[in-house]
Amino acid sequence: MSLVVMKFGGSSVADAEKIKRVASRVMERRKKGDKVVVVVSAPGDMTDDLEAMAEKITDNPHEREMDMLLATGEQVSIALLSMAINHHGMEAVSFTGPQAGFFADLSHTRARIKHIRPVKVMKALAKGQIVIVAGFQALNAKRDIVTLGRGGSDLSAVALAVAVKADVCEIYTDVKGVYTTDPRIVPEARKITQISYDEMLELAGAGAQVMQARSIEVGKKYAMPIHVRSTFSHETGTMIRTEVSNMEEVVVSGVAYDKNQAKITIRNVPDRPGVAAKMFGALADKGVNVDMIIQSSPIQGHNDISFTVPGASSKKTMAVLEKQQKSLGAKGIVCTEHMAKVSVVGVGMRSHPGVAAKFFKALADGKINIDMISTSEIKVACVVKQSDGEKAVRLAHKAFKLHVAKSKGQRAKRNP
Amino acid sequence: MSLVVMKFGGSSVADAEKIKRVASRVMERRKKGDKVVVVVSAPGDMTDDLEAMAEKITDNPHEREMDMLLATGEQVSIALLSMAINHHGMEAVSFTGPQAGFFADLSHTRARIKHIRPVKVMKALAKGQIVIVAGFQALNAKRDIVTLGRGGSDLSAVALAVAVKADVCEIYTDVKGVYTTDPRIVPEARKITQISYDEMLELAGAGAQVMQARSIEVGKKYAMPIHVRSTFSHETGTMIRTEVSNMEEVVVSGVAYDKNQAKITIRNVPDRPGVAAKMFGALADKGVNVDMIIQSSPIQGHNDISFTVPGASSKKTMAVLEKQQKSLGAKGIVCTEHMAKVSVVGVGMRSHPGVAAKFFKALADGKINIDMISTSEIKVACVVKQSDGEKAVRLAHKAFKLHVAKSKGQRAKRNP
Repeated sequence: MSLVVMKFGGSSVADAEKIKRVASRVMERRKKGDKVVVVVSAPGDMTDDLEAMAEKITDNPHEREMDMLLATGEQVSIALLSMAINHHGMEAVSFTGPQAGFFADLSHTRARIKHIRPVKVMKALAKGQIVIVAGFQALNAKRDIVTLGRGGSDLSAVALAVAVKADVCEIYTDVKGVYTTDPRIVPEARKITQISYDEMLELAGAGAQVMQARSIEVGKKYAMPIHVRSTFSHETGTMIRTEVSNMEEVVVSGVAYDKNQAKITIRNVPDRPGVAAKMFGALADKGVNVDMIIQSSPIQGHNDISFTVPGASSKKTMAVLEKQQKSLGAKGIVCTEHMAKVSVVGVGMRSHPGVAAKFFKALADGKINIDMISTSEIKVACVVKQSDGEKAVRLAHKAFKLHVAKSKGQRAKRNP
Repeated sequence: MSLVVMKFGGSSVADAEKIKRVASRVMERRKKGDKVVVVVSAPGDMTDDLEAMAEKITDNPHEREMDMLLATGEQVSIALLSMAINHHGMEAVSFTGPQAGFFADLSHTRARIKHIRPVKVMKALAKGQIVIVAGFQALNAKRDIVTLGRGGSDLSAVALAVAVKADVCEIYTDVKGVYTTDPRIVPEARKITQISYDEMLELAGAGAQVMQARSIEVGKKYAMPIHVRSTFSHETGTMIRTEVSNMEEVVVSGVAYDKNQAKITIRNVPDRPGVAAKMFGALADKGVNVDMIIQSSPIQGHNDISFTVPGASSKKTMAVLEKQQKSLGAKGIVCTEHMAKVSVVGVGMRSHPGVAAKFFKALADGKINIDMISTSEIKVACVVKQSDGEKAVRLAHKAFKLHVAKSKGQRAKRNP
C-alpha cells in the first residue's frame, strides 16, 4: 500500500463527463489499496471566465479580491469530483487550499507557499477517505485567501505530496508524458521514461509547457518523484526524479522550442556599472520576463546589449526602454520580432563535450543562421528566425538521435 | 454617523453593470459618513447553475459537497463588488461567511447560525473600510463550509446586523417595500410604511415572498429594525420593527396570497392518540411542508383530517400517505389540487373583533366558497379554489380599505 497524490488539470475536469472519468480513475486506485489524495484545478476555462468577469468591472482589479474571485474555480472542481465519488458509495471529502493547511506569504495572485499543515488531510486518510484538495490556493497570515499563480496547482500537488510524505506525485495531463520534443513538429519524438529535475527545469524554462517550473524545484528540493502521465491511459509516463549516474548515458534528453520571441538590442550603451541593473530593473517592475541576455565586449567604452522577451511583451518592453533611452545614454533601441528559441537539454552534457558544436553544425548544415546563443551546464539554446524554428527542432532531434529508443538493458538499469 | 448593514439579493448583482450600480449606492452611503457592511447573495442564476452542474454528476449530491459547491456563488459576488468599489479609490474588503465569523450547527444545506464573531468585520470598519460579506454561508464545528438554505442571505444580513450592533438592516430588493398585497393582482395596493415583525412573519408564511421568515424571527428576537427598500430608488421603503401601540390603528396590514396549494383529506381516521403524530411525522421525514391542518369533530370514533401542502408537493404527499393508509386505519385519501390561500394579516385584529366575519362576508358577497379556514391571533386564512384566488384577494383588499392611505397625522405618530 502506498500513498499517492494524483493531480488533474483543468482540461481533465472541464465537464460532468470528464469529472466522472477522473472519479473512476481515482476510485480504481483507491480500490487497489493505495491511499489517495487528489489535487484539482478549476474546470476548463473557468479561471479565464472569472478573469473576464473581473475585467468587465475594472481594468485594474484589486489583487486581494482577484484571489478571492479566482479561488472559487477550484472549489467548484473539488465539490463536483467529491460528489462523483460519493455517488458510487466510496467516501471522499473535499478541502479548499486553506482547509488542507496551505499557508503562503502575503503576496497576492502569485503567493509562495510557506508551509503546509495537512491535519485534516491526514485525519481523512486515516479514516480511509479519498481526499480531494483544491490546488492553486492557500491562506496567508492575515487569514486572507491567496493564489499561487498560473500553473499553481502543480505546485500544490508536489508540495502536498512532500507534506503528507507521499510515495509519488502523479501529474495527469492530456499527453502521455514528457517527449524528446513536440510531437506535432517531430512525429518521431519519443516519450522520455525518466528525466532529472534539472533537465525538466531547463525544458520548462525553454518552452516545454508540461509542468510549472516552481513545482519541479520543490520536487527536486525534497526528492519527491513526479510521474507525468496521461489522464486517458494506464501507460507509464515520464518519471521526474533525482539524477542517477546512468542517466548520463543519455547525452541529450530533449529539444525544447519556444516559437514566439522578440529580440531587443540596445546599441552603444556606456560601459559603466549600474546600467544593466537600471534597465532590467525597470523591465522587472513592469512584469516583463526577460530571457536570454547577451552583452558584447565593450568597444571604446560602449556596449551592445541584446536580450529576448516573449513575443507578446515586445511592445511593452519597447515602451519601457524608450522612456529610459536618454538616461541610459544609449544610441538606439532595435526590436526584432518573429524569433524562435530552440534548446537542447541533457545532464549528459556535463561529461560529454561537443554537444554545442554538434548542435551548431546541425543548424549550419541546414543553412539556419544562429542569431543568439546562450548556454547553461545542461542546456544549449539558440535563437533563430521564427521561419527556421521548426526545421531547427527537427535537425537537432535528428542530430542527437532522439528518435532512437534506448536499449532495454539501459532502461532496465534505470528502473532498478 | 450610524452603522448600517445593506443586503443585496442575487438579481441586484446579476451582471457587471448591476454590480457597478450597487457599488455606487454603497459608496454614496459611505461618503455620507455612515459605516457600511454589505451582505450579498450569489449573482443572478449562479446558484441554480451550480445546482444544475451537480445534477449532471449525481441525482443525489452529497450535502457537504453541495455546500462546498454553492458557497462559491456568494464568493464571486463579494470579490466583484469589492473590486468595483476599490476601482473608485474607496477601500473595500470582502469576507466569506467563515471569514466574517459566522458559525453554524452541523447540518448541511440548511444549517442554523449558532453565533457570529465578527472580529475581522469590526477591525475593517474601524479602519474606515467598506466591508462586503458573503451571505448564506458559515463554518461549522468541523470547520466545514455550510449553507443556510434558500433565502439565507437575508438571515446572514439580519444576524450580522445584530452582531455588529448596526442601527438598521436594509434589505434591498426589486420592489419598493412591502405592499398591502401583490400589486400585479391589485393595482391600488399601497406600500406599507411600517409593519411589526409578527405581521411580517404571518405575511411571509402566507406566501408574500419579500423576506425569508427566519430572518424576520431573528430581527424580532433582537429588535433589529429591518428596512425593506428598492435597489433602484432612494425612496423610503417599509420598516419592519417592534410593535408599537399606534400600529393597531391599522386593523389589517396586508393580504397575502399563495396561489398553488393542494388540499389532502384523510377520511374516517380512528379517533385515537398518536394517529396525527404518525401521519405528520412521516410527511416531515420526507421534507413535506404541511400548512393548514383541520380536524373535524369525531363522529362514531372517527375523524376526517384535512391539510394543505404546496401544490408541487402533492404527489410526494400522496405517495407517503398511501403507504400509511392501512396502518392509519383510514378509509380513504383524497387530494384536491388547484387550491389557493388568501390571508389577511394585522396586529390590530387583537383589539378589533369582527375581522374574520368581515373577510368571510366579502368573499360570500363575491360568491366565493371557502373551503378551509385557519386563524391565528393576527391572521385569518381562507383556502379557496385557485380560479377564485385573485378575486378573493381583490375583495379582501377592498373590504379592509387597504387602498386608502393613512392620514399624515397617523404616520407622524408612527415615526416619532
